[in-house]
Amino acid sequence: MGEIVTTGNELLIGKTLNTNAQWLTRRITSLGIKIARITVIGDSVDEISQVLKEALQRKNQFIITVGGLGPTFDDKTLQGIAMALQVELKLEEQARKMVEDKYKKYVEEGRMENVELTPHRVKMAMLPQGAKPLFNPVGTAPGVIMKKDDTTIIALPGVPPEMEAIFEDSVIPILKKAAGNRTFFETSIDATGLMESEVAPIVEKVMHDNPYVYIKSHPKLKEKAANLELHLSTTAEDSKIAKNRVSKALIQLTEMIQAKGGKTKPSAQLKTDAP
Amino acid sequence: MGEIVTTGNELLIGKTLNTNAQWLTRRITSLGIKIARITVIGDSVDEISQVLKEALQRKNQFIITVGGLGPTFDDKTLQGIAMALQVELKLEEQARKMVEDKYKKYVEEGRMENVELTPHRVKMAMLPQGAKPLFNPVGTAPGVIMKKDDTTIIALPGVPPEMEAIFEDSVIPILKKAAGNRTFFETSIDATGLMESEVAPIVEKVMHDNPYVYIKSHPKLKEKAANLELHLSTTAEDSKIAKNRVSKALIQLTEMIQAKGGKTKPSAQLKTDAP
Repeated sequence: MGEIVTTGNELLIGKTLNTNAQWLTRRITSLGIKIARITVIGDSVDEISQVLKEALQRKNQFIITVGGLGPTFDDKTLQGIAMALQVELKLEEQARKMVEDKYKKYVEEGRMENVELTPHRVKMAMLPQGAKPLFNPVGTAPGVIMKKDDTTIIALPGVPPEMEAIFEDSVIPILKKAAGNRTFFETSIDATGLMESEVAPIVEKVMHDNPYVYIKSHPKLKEKAANLELHLSTTAEDSKIAKNRVSKALIQLTEMIQAKGGKTKPSAQLKTDAP
Repeated sequence: MGEIVTTGNELLIGKTLNTNAQWLTRRITSLGIKIARITVIGDSVDEISQVLKEALQRKNQFIITVGGLGPTFDDKTLQGIAMALQVELKLEEQARKMVEDKYKKYVEEGRMENVELTPHRVKMAMLPQGAKPLFNPVGTAPGVIMKKDDTTIIALPGVPPEMEAIFEDSVIPILKKAAGNRTFFETSIDATGLMESEVAPIVEKVMHDNPYVYIKSHPKLKEKAANLELHLSTTAEDSKIAKNRVSKALIQLTEMIQAKGGKTKPSAQLKTDAP
């Protein structure tokens, strides 16, 4: 079980849609791991530190922060984490080399003229004491990983392709090891002809009879349109078990809806191209 | 200052993109009001109650919850709020009439056959003691408003057109009254030819000289693409003051970037069709 903390004033003024949170939760859920909370806060050292301390108190296995690792004054995540852990920021040699190698490469490619490690560039290699960098195959700022008691804290940059690349390369193996072989399976059907309040007792009955399957109804537009998506999901040790559980619940759900005069069909809503 | 709490397992498994949070933050920011935090949690009474209690401790002027007001077993927001406030859920007469009128209308329109207030339907009118309903012009479940000490708690349904309609009709007037006449103004330029780490000290200088303007750089793809969006924003009592402040900072920023060999142009990134 873990939490995600996404930072950035742009998320609090509605300039940016939080696609990073959706991408990460979808990817982590597919590993059979539960995300319990997502918190969005601004670019403030105090706020980041406060949210980290709260999440640490909840005894999470892991906390993943997104954003605030770059070279600008408002990239404050590592300061916030250091404050929460009551440690200093220190130049980390491996991180410094990663940043320097990137700038050397940019100079070779003719993208910039000088490789000088200005204070704004060195900043990306100043990690909370005890932390290690995670290689960024796409951009400049490394990801960062550290432990606090039983919680692993992972800091990822906010630029989506950088966040995704570090997650795939460096974070997935860590989470898989912690979670073991678990799998998530989901499917959806669309129901028409019944209102959500009429389907509600059916969903409760099917969930009662299928205790490992979670069913959630999503009105497609509004309840009076009487068009619902019904989403079924489970997490299991084995994908065959997971599929069987969901199939069994789906058959019962479909039969009960039809018996009440509703109609069902496979939902077009569910993304099957998820990672 | 306020916070947003969005509930729903679908947000924690990455099934649903949190467009509601973006819509609300954008709309509230346009009123010159600051959102300090967004929290996303699952459909759990304990979790909702816990997050509410935390947000109340932070002395917010308002807390807006989104989701969990409908007729299904996992619509748990009002239970969570009642637990946080240590009050009972009670049938509220105005809310009961709103729900009943909706079902009468659906029957008249031939959308359903019986208007009976089943337990799943009555549920939408069971409000925390002392709360009042907010009329839902689009769907069935009313919004809910209540006070706890100096904090106004507003619960909105999660279906986007319902959430938006109740917000526009009932919540905007309340927030405007609390905020007074404030306004938010923003603009963006794209900068090319310099890396984010080269622009960083320029941004700091311009912000130092223009203390009411916040400037944030957003790499368009990755830092090595050397293509940045620079977003300038301010909040003021008057839209003329706000525009003047941003314009002054924008001129200085543009001149300093050009003096360093960078190029600037108006950004296509900024949505100007925001409400």
